[in-house]
Amino acid sequence: MPQSPEQLLLVLFTIFVSAKVVGEVFERLSLPSVLGEILAGIGLGPYALGWITPTDTIHSVAEIGAIFVLFSAGLETSPRDLIGVGRKSLLVAAAGVVVPFILGFAYMKARGDVTSEAVFVGAAMVATSVGITARVLGDMRVLSTRTAKLILAAAVFDDILGMVLLAVVAGLASGRLEWLHLGILIGEAVAFALFMIFVAPRLVRRIEPQMARLSTQNASLIVALAICLLLSWLAAKIGIAAIIGAFFAGLMFADYAPQWNLLPRVAGITEFLAPYFFFAIGARLNIQLFSGNVMVAAIMISLLAIISKVIGCGLPVLNEGWPTVFRVGIGMMPRGEVALIVALVGLQSQIVTQATYAIVVFMTGITTLLAPPLLRYLFRGEIPQDAESSEVAAVQL
Amino acid sequence: MPQSPEQLLLVLFTIFVSAKVVGEVFERLSLPSVLGEILAGIGLGPYALGWITPTDTIHSVAEIGAIFVLFSAGLETSPRDLIGVGRKSLLVAAAGVVVPFILGFAYMKARGDVTSEAVFVGAAMVATSVGITARVLGDMRVLSTRTAKLILAAAVFDDILGMVLLAVVAGLASGRLEWLHLGILIGEAVAFALFMIFVAPRLVRRIEPQMARLSTQNASLIVALAICLLLSWLAAKIGIAAIIGAFFAGLMFADYAPQWNLLPRVAGITEFLAPYFFFAIGARLNIQLFSGNVMVAAIMISLLAIISKVIGCGLPVLNEGWPTVFRVGIGMMPRGEVALIVALVGLQSQIVTQATYAIVVFMTGITTLLAPPLLRYLFRGEIPQDAESSEVAAVQL
Repeated sequence: MPQSPEQLLLVLFTIFVSAKVVGEVFERLSLPSVLGEILAGIGLGPYALGWITPTDTIHSVAEIGAIFVLFSAGLETSPRDLIGVGRKSLLVAAAGVVVPFILGFAYMKARGDVTSEAVFVGAAMVATSVGITARVLGDMRVLSTRTAKLILAAAVFDDILGMVLLAVVAGLASGRLEWLHLGILIGEAVAFALFMIFVAPRLVRRIEPQMARLSTQNASLIVALAICLLLSWLAAKIGIAAIIGAFFAGLMFADYAPQWNLLPRVAGITEFLAPYFFFAIGARLNIQLFSGNVMVAAIMISLLAIISKVIGCGLPVLNEGWPTVFRVGIGMMPRGEVALIVALVGLQSQIVTQATYAIVVFMTGITTLLAPPLLRYLFRGEIPQDAESSEVAAVQL
Repeated sequence: MPQSPEQLLLVLFTIFVSAKVVGEVFERLSLPSVLGEILAGIGLGPYALGWITPTDTIHSVAEIGAIFVLFSAGLETSPRDLIGVGRKSLLVAAAGVVVPFILGFAYMKARGDVTSEAVFVGAAMVATSVGITARVLGDMRVLSTRTAKLILAAAVFDDILGMVLLAVVAGLASGRLEWLHLGILIGEAVAFALFMIFVAPRLVRRIEPQMARLSTQNASLIVALAICLLLSWLAAKIGIAAIIGAFFAGLMFADYAPQWNLLPRVAGITEFLAPYFFFAIGARLNIQLFSGNVMVAAIMISLLAIISKVIGCGLPVLNEGWPTVFRVGIGMMPRGEVALIVALVGLQSQIVTQATYAIVVFMTGITTLLAPPLLRYLFRGEIPQDAESSEVAAVQL
């Protein structure tokens, strides 16, 4: 039975406004607004006040929202910059993937959880949310420091490695745990990633001159949206998560995003749809589960998520002194959309329990909450006296 | 049973691309692309090839798309310009509403249709699609002529009058045909329109200085989106169509749209969602109905739609000579989104039959198809020699 337009619009309005209002309150408290949007979902959702239980339509809108969150993230990540960046940030990223995964996996296994749940928790601990860190460093005007650049480049690699890992995990979620299949899946995911980073941008460069010949208004936006939908579907089709396709579709157009004026127009779509995704994340969280064992595990996993990034990402820069180790490690600490999506994929495919889902969302919240104050403390000596020149650097990002 | 992400994405991709590809073909043939998008829906929809039968989710996405089509239209309509414009364009608009409504209503009644169907067809014949005419006149660089300005201002008034009429018709659709109730509904619709044109923009001017104090990024866009959703819901709630609320929400922010940079960001959303609306319009059209009686009625209604605008809109400018009469009349001829939405409201509330729906969609298609070549012919003497100065005028629009 379809909803009436009136019901649909009321739910759309309530979710949008509640998410944005709580987000605004969080912003004023210098907390990440995305946590406010999730909190709105927890509060109004079926496990707390019970005012809004997302329907199938809202879940679909939330899914499209997740796709645009990752498409936007990809658009803001230039593959050209990544290819040109030093070996060190790749090392930081790789170690920052391996250590959290192993620690998370080991803890869950030691706790007696089944392998598939442990894999999911490990995977969720991998990907750094570059958005939070970039925002804090930008606000402090230290983006032009070498450490900041190292963090941001590593966080981007991290996202890509996280995507590949998510592809593998999502493949596992379809229930086939044989090694041969796992190998094929890793191969597919890596091939897809390499193709999208190295080949796809060239294809865009080749079709670029043809775009002017299209009669449709906004042809560049339409082509980008069509390819985003196509790659999202294709990624879902070959058994890796749809958002991976969306992220790489964004990456593919990143170099042309300013020239084609894609950023404000895609940002409009993301701004409208993303709140439904974060609200839905919160609405699925059963807060009544946080007691005894689950609470202990949530706190332990959060601690491991922090320590593992400091160790993993700090190790490759150990020769640069302790301040750099902590700055890089804490800069890589916040988890974001990717962790939430890993958890959601696990929950939807019934591989992880409600409790494990709650643990991952808790860990994401804690790492995201703690990063800004810690970063402000660690970078306090680096704030430039000459605000003018570093404002230019902030704009360049 | 919710769709899997894979199914949902495949349908989203197929609708988006098919609508845009057929739209591009239409553009190349110098035909309005929106008709191509509708044709894609007819072709792939359940009454022809049967490849895609829109699900509840797609219908919801299409509804949100319709809201953004009208929100964008409102954003591009400055109420300040309307208040300042001469009395003549208001006369042209009013006569251009009354004559088509009466002729359409009379023909349907004469054909033996029930009153409610005749009212719906009359209402669908009212609203001019300003987009088509503005595009053709802009392409010909005659937007700066007095006749063109008169047409565009009248078309905007026409849209507002059409909205008020739609409000009444949508009220009728809820099945209460008493005169007292009709009076209340007209009163509500007129009061709503007057409030939104005269009072709401002042409210925006008053809250404007507060906006800078919001910490959320993109605060202006978010406030505009929230009010668009709120007014759409409110309009649906008081018994007038949701899109009327969206149109007036756009009107409310029109004066601040450039300053708040709303246009590209809302255009991004509209560009993404509108194809689902137009595709869904086409997918509901049963082409097998076009035979015998229905075909005759469709052709007659289309003829009346053309003649009635030439008579109604031409009469107030009769003293300016026949060329002006025809230019204004034909300029006001194309029907667009509003006509389609009137038909859709009628179909969804089961007031009009599939056949009547088909007649209205046919009339919309014919008037939209014929307007561009006729306008090019009628304005052929007015094309300026000095292209440079009139290009400036085109940019100003």
